[in-house]
Amino acid sequence: MKRRVGIVGFRGYSGAELVRLLDRHAQVKVILLDHREDSDISQIPAPGKQRQRAAATPETVTAQGLDLVFLATPAEVSMDLAPAMLRAGARVVDLSGAFRLREAPSYSRWYKEPHSAPELPGEAVYGLPEFCRSRIAGARLIANPGCYPTAANLALQPLVASGVIDRSAGIVCDAKSGVSGAGRKPSLKTSFCEVAENFSAYSVLDHRHVPEILMVSGLEEAELSFTAQLLPIHRGILETIYFRARNVTNSSDLLGIYSQKYKDEPFVRVFENRLPDIRGAEQTNFCDIGVRLDAATGRAVVVSVIDNLVKGAAGQAIQNMNLALGFPETEGLL
Amino acid sequence: MKRRVGIVGFRGYSGAELVRLLDRHAQVKVILLDHREDSDISQIPAPGKQRQRAAATPETVTAQGLDLVFLATPAEVSMDLAPAMLRAGARVVDLSGAFRLREAPSYSRWYKEPHSAPELPGEAVYGLPEFCRSRIAGARLIANPGCYPTAANLALQPLVASGVIDRSAGIVCDAKSGVSGAGRKPSLKTSFCEVAENFSAYSVLDHRHVPEILMVSGLEEAELSFTAQLLPIHRGILETIYFRARNVTNSSDLLGIYSQKYKDEPFVRVFENRLPDIRGAEQTNFCDIGVRLDAATGRAVVVSVIDNLVKGAAGQAIQNMNLALGFPETEGLL
Amino acid sequence: MKRRVGIVGFRGYSGAELVRLLDRHAQVKVILLDHREDSDISQIPAPGKQRQRAAATPETVTAQGLDLVFLATPAEVSMDLAPAMLRAGARVVDLSGAFRLREAPSYSRWYKEPHSAPELPGEAVYGLPEFCRSRIAGARLIANPGCYPTAANLALQPLVASGVIDRSAGIVCDAKSGVSGAGRKPSLKTSFCEVAENFSAYSVLDHRHVPEILMVSGLEEAELSFTAQLLPIHRGILETIYFRARNVTNSSDLLGIYSQKYKDEPFVRVFENRLPDIRGAEQTNFCDIGVRLDAATGRAVVVSVIDNLVKGAAGQAIQNMNLALGFPETEGLL
Amino acid sequence: MKRRVGIVGFRGYSGAELVRLLDRHAQVKVILLDHREDSDISQIPAPGKQRQRAAATPETVTAQGLDLVFLATPAEVSMDLAPAMLRAGARVVDLSGAFRLREAPSYSRWYKEPHSAPELPGEAVYGLPEFCRSRIAGARLIANPGCYPTAANLALQPLVASGVIDRSAGIVCDAKSGVSGAGRKPSLKTSFCEVAENFSAYSVLDHRHVPEILMVSGLEEAELSFTAQLLPIHRGILETIYFRARNVTNSSDLLGIYSQKYKDEPFVRVFENRLPDIRGAEQTNFCDIGVRLDAATGRAVVVSVIDNLVKGAAGQAIQNMNLALGFPETEGLL
Repeated sequence: MKRRVGIVGFRGYSGAELVRLLDRHAQVKVILLDHREDSDISQIPAPGKQRQRAAATPETVTAQGLDLVFLATPAEVSMDLAPAMLRAGARVVDLSGAFRLREAPSYSRWYKEPHSAPELPGEAVYGLPEFCRSRIAGARLIANPGCYPTAANLALQPLVASGVIDRSAGIVCDAKSGVSGAGRKPSLKTSFCEVAENFSAYSVLDHRHVPEILMVSGLEEAELSFTAQLLPIHRGILETIYFRARNVTNSSDLLGIYSQKYKDEPFVRVFENRLPDIRGAEQTNFCDIGVRLDAATGRAVVVSVIDNLVKGAAGQAIQNMNLALGFPETEGLL
Repeated sequence: MKRRVGIVGFRGYSGAELVRLLDRHAQVKVILLDHREDSDISQIPAPGKQRQRAAATPETVTAQGLDLVFLATPAEVSMDLAPAMLRAGARVVDLSGAFRLREAPSYSRWYKEPHSAPELPGEAVYGLPEFCRSRIAGARLIANPGCYPTAANLALQPLVASGVIDRSAGIVCDAKSGVSGAGRKPSLKTSFCEVAENFSAYSVLDHRHVPEILMVSGLEEAELSFTAQLLPIHRGILETIYFRARNVTNSSDLLGIYSQKYKDEPFVRVFENRLPDIRGAEQTNFCDIGVRLDAATGRAVVVSVIDNLVKGAAGQAIQNMNLALGFPETEGLL
Repeated sequence: MKRRVGIVGFRGYSGAELVRLLDRHAQVKVILLDHREDSDISQIPAPGKQRQRAAATPETVTAQGLDLVFLATPAEVSMDLAPAMLRAGARVVDLSGAFRLREAPSYSRWYKEPHSAPELPGEAVYGLPEFCRSRIAGARLIANPGCYPTAANLALQPLVASGVIDRSAGIVCDAKSGVSGAGRKPSLKTSFCEVAENFSAYSVLDHRHVPEILMVSGLEEAELSFTAQLLPIHRGILETIYFRARNVTNSSDLLGIYSQKYKDEPFVRVFENRLPDIRGAEQTNFCDIGVRLDAATGRAVVVSVIDNLVKGAAGQAIQNMNLALGFPETEGLL
Repeated sequence: MKRRVGIVGFRGYSGAELVRLLDRHAQVKVILLDHREDSDISQIPAPGKQRQRAAATPETVTAQGLDLVFLATPAEVSMDLAPAMLRAGARVVDLSGAFRLREAPSYSRWYKEPHSAPELPGEAVYGLPEFCRSRIAGARLIANPGCYPTAANLALQPLVASGVIDRSAGIVCDAKSGVSGAGRKPSLKTSFCEVAENFSAYSVLDHRHVPEILMVSGLEEAELSFTAQLLPIHRGILETIYFRARNVTNSSDLLGIYSQKYKDEPFVRVFENRLPDIRGAEQTNFCDIGVRLDAATGRAVVVSVIDNLVKGAAGQAIQNMNLALGFPETEGLL
């Protein structure tokens, strides 16, 4: 019998992607959970078929027998809903930044608002399966990683851990994202006429995703220069990472570190002969990684690619659900 | 000495285009007129240089000695501001739909709201220079045409007047516009992720620009099927017009009608050998027209192209200003 | 045990889409058939996994036990390969225009070259399942429909058959297609810088897909005005169809005709309350149809949408294969 | 009386931009010089008006009295044509990479072919006016800079010269360019369907523009990591430059260096309060530069933007022509 899961925020891009992907999942039935009255009903993405709806309340969790609830909501909504959903007995996979940082003060610094559920970050498990798989399985509250940190950490952590980065020279992560990463709420910044035929940087040296990268990769804040930039495309992230390599003699050495680390991972692909592009990972849950090294000087470039709505949001959330509910990790994702 | 003109609505796409184009105009100095406090100052398009600003009031007209005011504002704002500006002694070129239809009840029908300055539509002159040039010169209030009607009427009127359209079979105008035609105000409909890699029809058989097309072309409502559609591009309109031809034997006959009508017009280009595309008219004040006729069956196709922000808005508004203030008609537009 | 099928032309957009879609098909195993040495091996789309390859020869059909071969090739290649593949015992689904028209002279007129396998068009079955399902099941050679005709015929045929179109007034089909419809071979016409921020008409009143529309819809050449236009998007077709309705009193009458005709069809969706857009059918095998009627005047607009690479090419080809090999018609397509 | 100048390669994107920009130049008359018979005459961009044409030969230089010839041609064509044009008495502004590097062996290394006019690189003057203005005025042969190096050098040189970059930590230049930078010749890499909704890196650590950056900026090859990447837009370059700053205490110190260096430059704009984006420099000859510095750690980010077809090609070529022929430097460019 199928397990029942709820989705709050199904009107947004990440939430709608969750609905779309879970339609292919053999073991769960989705209940759409209405959080707010939306005055303009026409803005609800056509679900394409009849779907079960209910209010996003603890009572629904009980009445519907929900095993797990996805919160595809802004951080302030997640801080409000997560405690109630947990108390009602559901596991929670939260796609916002509310519970990713281990300590509430760190949240306050980067998100520039106080944390309204400060008891929870300490309990939450960071949902990057490639590094936290065992803890995810038993977690009540899973903090689904940010899109930029997912691509960055999968590329950086193995190299940092292997000691092949000369950290004294600093590391650069030049990140580019499609517009869906900014969410579905209309704004001038994401209007077609402002984005098309344009490209721009934002939150330079001050992006709220930076502490997640530091937390997982093991780098220090002073070592990492991170820039987010807006690509005139719908979906996809490509990060170009620069560092000075040491203790390696050629590209194969770097590729070997990745291959060793990810040889049993279903959702990381190491590119041997060329660099990945955004198209190749589109609508997949893969993180694609490639490397260039100039052996003589140690200059190294890593390119890491994901689909921000899949491995960077809804796909990884389902991967986490699969781990938490005991399904095969790849169910619904290949 | 330069004449002084004001622009209300300079933050919008048409208003910003007016500012940009008037920078090249040798005979006017522009004053930006603030109509509303904009809470988010960052949303003002970078003017690129120091510009004179003043309040959008009748007092400013007097104090600054404004000869003419452009209203690049929504219809309800134009209905509010135009009477006051006129009383203060300025000519007005209004880019909204407020004064295009000759009678206030017609406005109410198509714009679905009462007209709040019902004495003015009767006085206003419709600002399509190719058909109303002499009246524009002496006008106090010029109603700048809609973007779709400009492309449609320049293509249709000469054919209707020449009697080469079999009106009993009906005329189709299938129109496609870039996103800037929907204005700068953020909305889901004009968000990048909704528009990119998409194409859709809207206001089918019920677009408020229809009465303008009927008014100028001479067609009856029952004869014309007009559809507006949203192209995933920034700017440009292409209309594909279909009709059954009569009294002509080949494409040259139709081209001849256009050439005769427009031989002295600076802003209409008749394409002899190929059909125009949107790129060719981009950032110009031209309307490009081409024709295909199947002589055996009388099936005829006309393609009419403009840049919706230039000939469809700001460029034509300047052309009207040039006529109204006695400048060379092409000043600042070639 | 899985049946074995071959694909010639798997480097092209339609062929690559066949490979991608058949990866989800439970009952066939794909063999990629090399027709020409491609000098630039880098241009082969990354298949993402190891795939079986063989030469596109009759010997391969026998040696590999191929039940069916897809020809995703230009018409001249299909005319060359189809006879040999048929003789070797494989069924053939041809995605080109080589065998769609019933008579070789008609091919010569519209494709402007002689037919090099003139004995085959008479045998070929036109692969539009909604109208030719029973004949497809037994066919040796299936001519997969063109992309434009698929969207046009599914919209037009039921209306023509029902007698609700006033054919004396003519029918307009204004069609817009994404760039992948032009194929993968590089050309200036499909270069990014020529297509982006542009829109243009081509083959006006002279498109080779016209005879397919006439053949299935039952219209006469003199009655139909068809224009193809290039949208700056990757994939998708939207056709806006105009006609004068008779014998109907409101939109529901037209919708009723479609609902009656397509009530058991898995791949046609009739839109009751709004018009379809390109996004909604993207990467699906659906044809989405919506209607607007002005009852007072009889002016009617139908919007028909498909993904040109799926229902307009590879998806429909698989639907035909499913019928020909006795699989469930929707296998691999939902 | 107007001076006469010729353009070879006017069909390409840079050449067509030269034609377009020179239409606004008050002091020159353009002669289009045909270098190769183009079999497909339809591919010539519509010049929009009657233009004078002649063969691209030394005889034309003499017969037409050409003062200067622009070579908007591939390097191998420029190496062939430049000597002959110079001997015929014309000055030459070459837009290819043929004469940018001072020594022919360096050309051979980076362009991977021998130099066929090895006597010329030593004579050529590098046409970056902000750094080589005085020598450009008297030059016979001007090597117009590459697009990427123009944005990079205007941003890097003042900082390197001021000693505020900790060069031991390395410098990263992450560059993104619109598709027109790849030229007008059709190729799969620049096809709409390959570029749209995609983003990719190329020539990583091995781009032929690197030596130009080293030559002007004063950096060593081992110090600079340069990556070129393809943006799904028509035109524009944005480079994000990372380094470790020293001897400065805040962003103003870096801005001050730029302001001091460029205070009299007509085509460099220093952004005080925000970072530039690609749109802001579109269709202008400006290079826009902005800065972010984290004072505590010295991490610095510079964003440098140009339009690759204007300041990165045709506009800068005209700026060089203005210097060489004694016109005001900004003529035709503001």
